[in-house]
Amino acid sequence: MVSEPTTPVVALLENNNIPLHAADDQETAIAAFKKYDVTILPVVDSKERLVGVLTVDDVLDLAEKEATEDMQKLGGVEALGGPYLKIDLAMMIKKRAPWLVILFLSEMLTTTAMGFFEKEIAKAVVLALFLPLIISSGGNSGSQATTLIIRAMAIGEVTLRDWWRVMRREVFAGLALGCVLGAIGFARISAWSLFSHVYGPHWPLIGLTIFFSLIGVVLWGTLAGSMLPFVLRRVGVDPATSSAPFVATLVDVTGLIIYFTIAMVVLKGTLL
Amino acid sequence: MVSEPTTPVVALLENNNIPLHAADDQETAIAAFKKYDVTILPVVDSKERLVGVLTVDDVLDLAEKEATEDMQKLGGVEALGGPYLKIDLAMMIKKRAPWLVILFLSEMLTTTAMGFFEKEIAKAVVLALFLPLIISSGGNSGSQATTLIIRAMAIGEVTLRDWWRVMRREVFAGLALGCVLGAIGFARISAWSLFSHVYGPHWPLIGLTIFFSLIGVVLWGTLAGSMLPFVLRRVGVDPATSSAPFVATLVDVTGLIIYFTIAMVVLKGTLL
Repeated sequence: MVSEPTTPVVALLENNNIPLHAADDQETAIAAFKKYDVTILPVVDSKERLVGVLTVDDVLDLAEKEATEDMQKLGGVEALGGPYLKIDLAMMIKKRAPWLVILFLSEMLTTTAMGFFEKEIAKAVVLALFLPLIISSGGNSGSQATTLIIRAMAIGEVTLRDWWRVMRREVFAGLALGCVLGAIGFARISAWSLFSHVYGPHWPLIGLTIFFSLIGVVLWGTLAGSMLPFVLRRVGVDPATSSAPFVATLVDVTGLIIYFTIAMVVLKGTLL
Repeated sequence: MVSEPTTPVVALLENNNIPLHAADDQETAIAAFKKYDVTILPVVDSKERLVGVLTVDDVLDLAEKEATEDMQKLGGVEALGGPYLKIDLAMMIKKRAPWLVILFLSEMLTTTAMGFFEKEIAKAVVLALFLPLIISSGGNSGSQATTLIIRAMAIGEVTLRDWWRVMRREVFAGLALGCVLGAIGFARISAWSLFSHVYGPHWPLIGLTIFFSLIGVVLWGTLAGSMLPFVLRRVGVDPATSSAPFVATLVDVTGLIIYFTIAMVVLKGTLL
């Protein structure tokens, strides 16, 4: 930085140090510090007048707070807004209860949905035995997908425009993962059936029901988990609201409909 | 910083700028920058010789990478180690399949556990209808608890020594949250029973089964979710491994045993 003594100061400015605006949100500030690799940035008002500077250690605190909030939302809790051990117990319960209640009310739909298949369950109780396995597999794959996309959005790796690319990737990932779990499920039922008669003479059909259901539910979970953050951001809601428990609940309800529908087709005329 | 020209440089050092050691881990570096609010810190080797400096913008990148990894683990995915859209599709499936398979194999225990209650389900199919609702409530409360504790541990708010304080808080939180969900569940069954005979004449007993099961499962989910990170850290495993799906799976298996056991006690002589 050696210049002629007569050079005006403005000419020494590196013009890639675009200032932050006072109205910019926290994520913009974090992104700017990462992009320009600086330790301090000027902040200007709407008329480009300097109102102060932001230092990178403030931003470090900010980035950590943002990540904590996102993580808590992802876990299905309203952001605590304070250290876990210091926050008042009643306040903490108040932060956790609403989401738990919303999830509970949504999950009640599983009871309603299963009511439609009560006759089938009574005829083939074996269907009930595999239910938690099937629906949780959808929830787990959805949880993976939503976590990856929410974080990728938060750090700017994925934007709204990328939804189609993400969907294409997740269709392949969902099918591949569904086939892996389906194959394990089929193998498990076959292995059990060779040693005992627990699943009766129609075990290959039960195995096929589980196989196809797992592919369907995992694919659906993956798609729901990856697309929900896009839908939320599109309508202006924080994508992190699409928490892992929220996706799991959504996939539980729809997953059991997929499962029983496949069962009714495959087992028609034998067990059902 | 105006001193006599003869003052030795060492006397100008602020002695609260404790240097980082080359072998310190990333989290120590992040914590030091946050604690001292500086933009640069010296790094020394084991003989306290200067080997270089660490600037806060490096640390900002580091903190973001750490948070991303923790979040991905929390969602039940091995850390991707690269931007979502750039990572090879086959590689991404390879990062997601192992956890999904481990969760699937663990969740198979639900099928085994339910096998022990097959006779009860055949007698009272209504029990199957509430199963997803009960076990997912345990999973959701466990997911909340594990997310809060893992993040609080990562940013140093909670240490191993705090396990007892955390447990006491979570016992209260779990009981309170369980009572809230239990009350809603009981109200739902009562309301339905007033308008239809879907649950038969013994609906108050079914309501009580759901009420007690929800308290038991939510309390258990909360305790499992909050204590598992302590157990993992104690044995030297990254607490973030105790992901939301992992806790949900654990609670699914144990939750259905709690549910059917309570059902057998409450419904003995009527439905069972």
